[in-house]
Amino acid sequence: MASQEMYALGSQSSVIRELFTYGQQQAAIVGRENVFDFSIGNPTVPAPACIREAIEEILATRESAAIHGYTAASGDEAVRQGLAAYMNETYDAGVTAGNFYMTCGAAASLTITLKALVEGPADEIVLLAPFFPEYTVFVGNAGAKVVVVPPDVEQFQVSLNALEQAMTAHTRAVIVNSPNNPSGTVYSAETYEKVAALLGRKSAEIGHPIYLIADEPYREIIYDGLPILYVPKFYSNTIICYSYSKSLSLPGERIGYILIPGCAAASREVYTAVCGAGRAMGFVCAPHLFQDVVLKCLGQTSDVGVYDFNRKLLYNELSQMGYECVYPSGAFYLFVKSPEAAAAAFAEKAKKLNLLIVPADSFGCPGYVRISYCVDPDMIKRSFGAFRKLIEQYV
Amino acid sequence: MASQEMYALGSQSSVIRELFTYGQQQAAIVGRENVFDFSIGNPTVPAPACIREAIEEILATRESAAIHGYTAASGDEAVRQGLAAYMNETYDAGVTAGNFYMTCGAAASLTITLKALVEGPADEIVLLAPFFPEYTVFVGNAGAKVVVVPPDVEQFQVSLNALEQAMTAHTRAVIVNSPNNPSGTVYSAETYEKVAALLGRKSAEIGHPIYLIADEPYREIIYDGLPILYVPKFYSNTIICYSYSKSLSLPGERIGYILIPGCAAASREVYTAVCGAGRAMGFVCAPHLFQDVVLKCLGQTSDVGVYDFNRKLLYNELSQMGYECVYPSGAFYLFVKSPEAAAAAFAEKAKKLNLLIVPADSFGCPGYVRISYCVDPDMIKRSFGAFRKLIEQYV
Repeated sequence: MASQEMYALGSQSSVIRELFTYGQQQAAIVGRENVFDFSIGNPTVPAPACIREAIEEILATRESAAIHGYTAASGDEAVRQGLAAYMNETYDAGVTAGNFYMTCGAAASLTITLKALVEGPADEIVLLAPFFPEYTVFVGNAGAKVVVVPPDVEQFQVSLNALEQAMTAHTRAVIVNSPNNPSGTVYSAETYEKVAALLGRKSAEIGHPIYLIADEPYREIIYDGLPILYVPKFYSNTIICYSYSKSLSLPGERIGYILIPGCAAASREVYTAVCGAGRAMGFVCAPHLFQDVVLKCLGQTSDVGVYDFNRKLLYNELSQMGYECVYPSGAFYLFVKSPEAAAAAFAEKAKKLNLLIVPADSFGCPGYVRISYCVDPDMIKRSFGAFRKLIEQYV
Repeated sequence: MASQEMYALGSQSSVIRELFTYGQQQAAIVGRENVFDFSIGNPTVPAPACIREAIEEILATRESAAIHGYTAASGDEAVRQGLAAYMNETYDAGVTAGNFYMTCGAAASLTITLKALVEGPADEIVLLAPFFPEYTVFVGNAGAKVVVVPPDVEQFQVSLNALEQAMTAHTRAVIVNSPNNPSGTVYSAETYEKVAALLGRKSAEIGHPIYLIADEPYREIIYDGLPILYVPKFYSNTIICYSYSKSLSLPGERIGYILIPGCAAASREVYTAVCGAGRAMGFVCAPHLFQDVVLKCLGQTSDVGVYDFNRKLLYNELSQMGYECVYPSGAFYLFVKSPEAAAAAFAEKAKKLNLLIVPADSFGCPGYVRISYCVDPDMIKRSFGAFRKLIEQYV
């Protein structure tokens, strides 16, 4: 009656979504203030004021068709010009409007890029654990194989030896995600230099370029004054997948882009295939009003200070209680080592205290849990009692 | 370097898009008022006032996360409840919120539905000529075969004999599109009754249900007081793909839905597969703000009277000049028989007069052209001189 594969995907909701739904139900029973939901990466910090101002200005000054009509499939020309100017100013990127393809957010950026790159079922896409679990679904949709590189549980950077071992003649691309979901770490310049050297050497060996797909929805959510690195400067064959979901707190509006810089191998060919992949999957164009809105809000972000506050609060308090936490430099996730081998059992004990945290098994990193802190700081403060009861079960 | 198939799709832009781009260039040379662009179905009638009012009200009364946050993948619950109530009131549809899956517009509705239904490469999807050319791309993306039923050039309803001949044991679904792009015809109750009887008989013969996919972006753009028919009343195994692009003049905002009524065979199974297909392709959720906007504008449309005016103006004038026109009962297309066998040659002659009309070969209907009249009535009036010069070349 229906595709078995799609039925399976539709019926297995993710661990994250399941916990989130459980939290909603539990809140109805024990009260919202007694459920500590750290499950989902849905930003609670409001979108910056420029979003509302931009919408109001556009509605007041443009005609209906100029607001709501189709744009080119690749996005409005003025929007892409503005993006190029911004990236050149900020990162000395050397890109033009023609390098951008506007999308319906990060997931679409990835499914389109993967479908554009994958030539056949033998192709392999390398994921560096820990990784966002939906990557495996997106690679499956493109018809390629997933190859997982085990995590570097020392630094949560990249295990270069493991990455080298994972690469074969069929390696088409490696996905990197920094700032990282779920570990909260940020790749250093040194990491990028080493990865670039390895990918360059491997590309030469196998006789075709291995692309680096930089999934960067958390690009601007970075702490301690760390610099934001422009990945194509390290490795030219980089394709950037971006989304405004986190930086502008617009996850429901589905707006982002793919940037295929001119320095990437076969840049125009890949760009054309991206247009083809977007067309095949029926994306038509990215939402028009929000294309224009993000143009008017270039360089702005939601108040990252709230996330920084949450980060310090949670990291310091949990570390003091005895939790082993990965130091978070970006995104809004705290990655914590489970005090027992099975993170799922640990998360289950947490759930009994109405503390909703995600075991990282599906992120390719067993033995850890993810705590999403894009939440109200008051909830964090209220949760400490439960976190204390939880760790006391292990001493 | 990239997928050959996606590269090919990205480099072959459609005839329609090519003509549209040519028109923009030509306007810069001879002046916008001297180009008569009937190429594209981009509504020029403004969105109704309720759209702007709804956006303003939502911005003024809700918090950021409630406006721009993620919704459930299937769409906001209140929006789907509102849609169900509207459909029940208007068409006595007997549906619930759980039958709706919100999408990024008609193309997404179709790619998701097709991917959900197609089980393997032997599956066949039947298209009734004339049909929107992108259907073949969408069927290809789902990994199935396209089977084309030749047009009924007498009535532009459905050639039942031809449809019967096109069906095999591998037929998974038939796509119908009424009001029709490009013919402008509307299927009668009698047509649906006959199609339903045939599909029912064939389903029994081959031992699995053949689904009817009703692609209905033009549902409310219908003239002469014709009734809007609710297709599942005629054939229970119907899946409706809807979009607000045309009815509310919002093509750039990408908002629509899939309706899988409870009466359809394996309704829950198909719905679950739809959720899986949306997830696989990275749709995440339909744009949140516009989900809420369409909820506030249920039952409203753009001013269809303008299209009706254009329709009469164009049909009457062109018929008088000697063009053989299909009488348009819906949508905003006039379908005209080419005065020479090759419609492409005819359209080329028109182009020399800056009259941009689309040969219907790619719609599966050679020998005809499509004239899109969702345009400024003044442009239609200015174009008559050119239409006259064109037909004079054939007398």
